[in-house]
Amino acid sequence: MAKQLSGAGLRGQVAGKTALSTVGKSGSGLTYRGYDVKDLANNCIFEEVAYLILKGELPNQEQLTAYQSKLKGLRGLPQALKDVLERIPASAHPMDVIRTGCSMLGNLETEESFDQQQDATDRMLAAFPGIINYWYRFSHDGVRIETETDDDTIGAHFLHLLHGEKPSELHERVMNVSLILYAEHEFNASTFTARVCASTLSDIHSCITGAIGSLRGPLHGGANEAAMELIEGMKDPEHAEESLMGMLERKEKIMGFGHAIYSESDPRNEIIKVWSEKLAAEKGDAQLYDISVRCEAVMWREKKLFCNADFFHASAYNYMGIPTKLFTPIFVCSRLTGWAAHVMEQRADNRIIRPSAEYVGAEPRSVVPIAER
Amino acid sequence: MAKQLSGAGLRGQVAGKTALSTVGKSGSGLTYRGYDVKDLANNCIFEEVAYLILKGELPNQEQLTAYQSKLKGLRGLPQALKDVLERIPASAHPMDVIRTGCSMLGNLETEESFDQQQDATDRMLAAFPGIINYWYRFSHDGVRIETETDDDTIGAHFLHLLHGEKPSELHERVMNVSLILYAEHEFNASTFTARVCASTLSDIHSCITGAIGSLRGPLHGGANEAAMELIEGMKDPEHAEESLMGMLERKEKIMGFGHAIYSESDPRNEIIKVWSEKLAAEKGDAQLYDISVRCEAVMWREKKLFCNADFFHASAYNYMGIPTKLFTPIFVCSRLTGWAAHVMEQRADNRIIRPSAEYVGAEPRSVVPIAER
Repeated sequence: MAKQLSGAGLRGQVAGKTALSTVGKSGSGLTYRGYDVKDLANNCIFEEVAYLILKGELPNQEQLTAYQSKLKGLRGLPQALKDVLERIPASAHPMDVIRTGCSMLGNLETEESFDQQQDATDRMLAAFPGIINYWYRFSHDGVRIETETDDDTIGAHFLHLLHGEKPSELHERVMNVSLILYAEHEFNASTFTARVCASTLSDIHSCITGAIGSLRGPLHGGANEAAMELIEGMKDPEHAEESLMGMLERKEKIMGFGHAIYSESDPRNEIIKVWSEKLAAEKGDAQLYDISVRCEAVMWREKKLFCNADFFHASAYNYMGIPTKLFTPIFVCSRLTGWAAHVMEQRADNRIIRPSAEYVGAEPRSVVPIAER
Repeated sequence: MAKQLSGAGLRGQVAGKTALSTVGKSGSGLTYRGYDVKDLANNCIFEEVAYLILKGELPNQEQLTAYQSKLKGLRGLPQALKDVLERIPASAHPMDVIRTGCSMLGNLETEESFDQQQDATDRMLAAFPGIINYWYRFSHDGVRIETETDDDTIGAHFLHLLHGEKPSELHERVMNVSLILYAEHEFNASTFTARVCASTLSDIHSCITGAIGSLRGPLHGGANEAAMELIEGMKDPEHAEESLMGMLERKEKIMGFGHAIYSESDPRNEIIKVWSEKLAAEKGDAQLYDISVRCEAVMWREKKLFCNADFFHASAYNYMGIPTKLFTPIFVCSRLTGWAAHVMEQRADNRIIRPSAEYVGAEPRSVVPIAER
């Protein structure tokens, strides 16, 4: 007989092994291949961390340069993919766009065998910023952008495609930090989706397409967008406090606080918060940052709820001129690293993931002829 | 601490509740909402079973007529979707095509709230045969087919689009049986993918797109295609026996036999086998059927392995002139019913599916400056 699990949603149940990350275990609570995420965010660019997650070790300078060069060479999009993106309306959900773009890429550059998995991953890492920005600029501004830039990092490349000019050094640095913070998070729902798909030995584009669909859900990705919608309606810190108190009294859902795994704080918050403050200083407009700080204080004072990774991402992205609807697609450009590494890990020691169900349906019965129903 | 599960791949572990089906429990081993699959296959058309799975009860004649009429009205494809399909090459994997078609449909007709889930499902049930055949006929024959037909059933509609003419009564009947047999199968990997995605409260097109990606894997869907590749290389029953014995001796993998859950027989096999025999008689060419029967005998005699649902599907589909590469997409057109019903069930009593992992990676370590690596 099948064994009853203790928690709904497989909570607390081990569904497999990983060497990629720990969540809520050692150090500040999040490690990638043994390194504290703060250490990585303070000392690395995203490409170093992607290399680490995908290959197991941090690159030396030669390896990093070669990896960046490879990624830079993979930014062009096939014409058929651009044609598809041009047929997606401006009103579409951006996560549907990148899900479709990834799926279409799988038709044009199919992973025919698993020894292509690293190349297919690198291609997606290089192409995803182009996919989302090509669609965004075409559908919103009527412009067909060139998706190849000579920026050294994916973070700078993303902002360059979006704004049509090279970003400042500060903006590039913040993008690197952000992409590092979102890169990997153990068996969350989108990563688990990718692993279930991988367990049938399907191709990597199927795995990533499925993961994007799961990240799209409001219980998973999208909290930074919801946080932005919250704070952009607040005029100043006093108004923020007043609004939050009202929401708490009406028991409304407030996004960007608390976490399913972390119980005392989200280690990613203090990092992105510092960068949000620097962006505010650069812009000479601290209002959104000050509002966010007040929200943090109120939520802690009233509910002992801490900001998660998403909350200060909202103001940080906003300071960099990123439209709110592109927040979760940036999450995709980052988490793609973790998803792909989990696919590789699943493939290396695979058994198809096929749980059982508890049956709660109708008793055995016989079909009654349709004339008698 | 997280609890260690007994089996890899969550085997034998209850991951949720379902009222949709039982596998290996009562009757012949497979029931949909309490009805034995044999009873349904013998007495119903696919639309009755889709209605049953999605809504809980078999329809009466009035309800069935209304449902068929609704589905018939939803067969046309948006121009933007046809444009996308025309850009996918003939060499693409057909599962990548239907995955992309489903994802694109989600951009054009987004499920904005869960009260649209039944309509979105019906739209996919009606449109999927058009999606796969529009691409197939355009990429292989250079023809832009009209995807709207007046056939009463999805099975007849599929064959009509593929062959350009209404199918015989026998072929329509076999398609109904086949679509019924594949419609639902509890927490298999593709269905579980759909439920994990649904548990983030994502939209239904994301859930189905993800499920298609998982069914694509050779450990899941595709066994009927592999069975076809096996038997089409066999000249006659004697040659079949000789080939199989050689493969067994060389310990080669033979697809279409045995099952992860069923231990003595697959209840779907005896049903499709009977119809394969009838198709052979109609065609006046029993060779493929006779070869299949011999394979069944040899595998039982040598390995005590029984035919699963897929094995006689190969000859049945082949007798109806269906190209081997479209076998798994037909599986999609059927299983879509079960996937969608599981999505609805997950949404109705949801908790995000987020298991834990056993960490087997590097010990805590510090980032070394890149110049010193």
